[in-house]
Amino acid sequence: MGRLSEAEIIQALAAGVHGRRDVVVGIGDDGAVLAPPAGRHLVSVLDTLNEGIHFPAGTDAAAVGHRALAVNLSDMAAMGAEPAWAGLSLSLAEPDGHWIRRFAEGFHSLAVRWGVALIGGDTVRGPLSVAVHLMGFVAPGAMLTRCGARPGDRVYVTGAPGEAMAGLQRLLADPDVPSSHLTRRFLWPEPRVAEGGDLSGLASAAIDLSDGLATDLGRIAEASGVRVVIDVEDLPQSEEMKAAFGPEVATDLVITGGDDYELAFTMPPDREAELLARAAGWSCSLSRIGHVETGVGLAFRRNGRPFLPDTTRSWRHFQGDQR
Amino acid sequence: MGRLSEAEIIQALAAGVHGRRDVVVGIGDDGAVLAPPAGRHLVSVLDTLNEGIHFPAGTDAAAVGHRALAVNLSDMAAMGAEPAWAGLSLSLAEPDGHWIRRFAEGFHSLAVRWGVALIGGDTVRGPLSVAVHLMGFVAPGAMLTRCGARPGDRVYVTGAPGEAMAGLQRLLADPDVPSSHLTRRFLWPEPRVAEGGDLSGLASAAIDLSDGLATDLGRIAEASGVRVVIDVEDLPQSEEMKAAFGPEVATDLVITGGDDYELAFTMPPDREAELLARAAGWSCSLSRIGHVETGVGLAFRRNGRPFLPDTTRSWRHFQGDQR
Repeated sequence: MGRLSEAEIIQALAAGVHGRRDVVVGIGDDGAVLAPPAGRHLVSVLDTLNEGIHFPAGTDAAAVGHRALAVNLSDMAAMGAEPAWAGLSLSLAEPDGHWIRRFAEGFHSLAVRWGVALIGGDTVRGPLSVAVHLMGFVAPGAMLTRCGARPGDRVYVTGAPGEAMAGLQRLLADPDVPSSHLTRRFLWPEPRVAEGGDLSGLASAAIDLSDGLATDLGRIAEASGVRVVIDVEDLPQSEEMKAAFGPEVATDLVITGGDDYELAFTMPPDREAELLARAAGWSCSLSRIGHVETGVGLAFRRNGRPFLPDTTRSWRHFQGDQR
Repeated sequence: MGRLSEAEIIQALAAGVHGRRDVVVGIGDDGAVLAPPAGRHLVSVLDTLNEGIHFPAGTDAAAVGHRALAVNLSDMAAMGAEPAWAGLSLSLAEPDGHWIRRFAEGFHSLAVRWGVALIGGDTVRGPLSVAVHLMGFVAPGAMLTRCGARPGDRVYVTGAPGEAMAGLQRLLADPDVPSSHLTRRFLWPEPRVAEGGDLSGLASAAIDLSDGLATDLGRIAEASGVRVVIDVEDLPQSEEMKAAFGPEVATDLVITGGDDYELAFTMPPDREAELLARAAGWSCSLSRIGHVETGVGLAFRRNGRPFLPDTTRSWRHFQGDQR
């Protein structure tokens, strides 16, 4: 194990790379050369994770590798695109062989599942930080953006938002807490890639819940120039969360907890039958949680009355001042 | 100026962005949507710069912004490709408005010169680090790689390698040293984008000198399975370097100093007339410095005799253990 040279690091990261025929030149030159498919748009996302900000210090390296790709896959899903090629830039204080191999395992096991080839990048010395650049494809006109929500649309969310933040609370209280559904939801987020693909050409607007339902639906409202109204009693609440935190805190977690990488989206009512048909094949649940109207901003109501969630609570107290 | 919110940071970075018609969705969504040109390959590069590793702490933010794009443009040039779209991930300990605006100035003034559009990215909290992802295009078959050097080829280099490292020595000795040709060569590297484009379809192998002539030409030798022989007396040495360091140290700097972002390349002799015709329009000099033969590795000779350069010298002593 021990310290690795740069060549050994590249070798460790290159082991297990998913192969694709459209990679003309992959890892090992000044840049990668790729053959994009004709007639499709290219989608490009870039996200960085820093230790102590986006994951607690000491997190299993495999979970870090998984997360670094997952957050980018989630952005790709929110665009309705099909992922293809990833670049990786890894800053490491110490080139520890065991850590790097675990990291590569976590990264590649997710990459293989979604057909993503690692095409290059660099490793540099510095505080632990992982930047992943992901490219994918979408048919022109079928892409999902934040700006297409229209009055009369309905609002939906995949899965059970808040569970990841609930799991993080467990881990922060006791780093050695036994693995559970909630802790796995934080450590091993499942990007909704297949679901995003199904929504491509169907949803009017979409976003992934990296910063929490309230923040991210607010972005759709702002970008689309509409008012988004959420019915709190329709928000999905898992039994695990209610059992662990009680219904009130669980509601807060659903509304303000980030890091789930669920998708929230809007759609005209006349497409709902098609949505339900597609969602029958999904591995996660689907909930209708509100509607879009004329106006500005995001509003919550509970049983028809205005509801003001506590959005000031800072769940992620392993960090100073999150951005 | 003071601290900026995330929205203000994005606004500061988005000001001055070069526009391109092939950017379908730019800054402000989960990902960028791009329309690649038909019939060309896509080239993708990703490089990260960390403060204290790739540039000294306290470096002018405009120079950091320039460098972050320049090192990626240099990789693009080494592939013979035309740059188009950049993503930016910026880790900042403190969202200082003055710093971010200076950074954006340095980044965008170089981006505009090469027609590069900033298409998105993220800003996160953490130690100062800049990851840039750059995409560009090259005609299939015209790309430059490290693996095409053949026995009989000649070896060339652009400009005056070593000057950047000479400038860095000046800055390390006295951070307030007056600006000079050498310090500007470190702080404001000029990527050889036009030259790389001219070499596309002409050179047999190419690389950019980010890690120094000896290290990077060794990579061409290894990737191509050939022996590269360099004639030390043919290496370009600028008057500024000789005056500042004497001829022997200047030779060391030419051979081992990195961070110049000059291009080194190989080419069959029968293409030299074409090369010279193209190079007549370049803004930098061109030097023929050696040849390729059967064998392995990189060798130096001086006036026909074997020469062993001191490649153990560590110039970049502002850092611990560079990778």
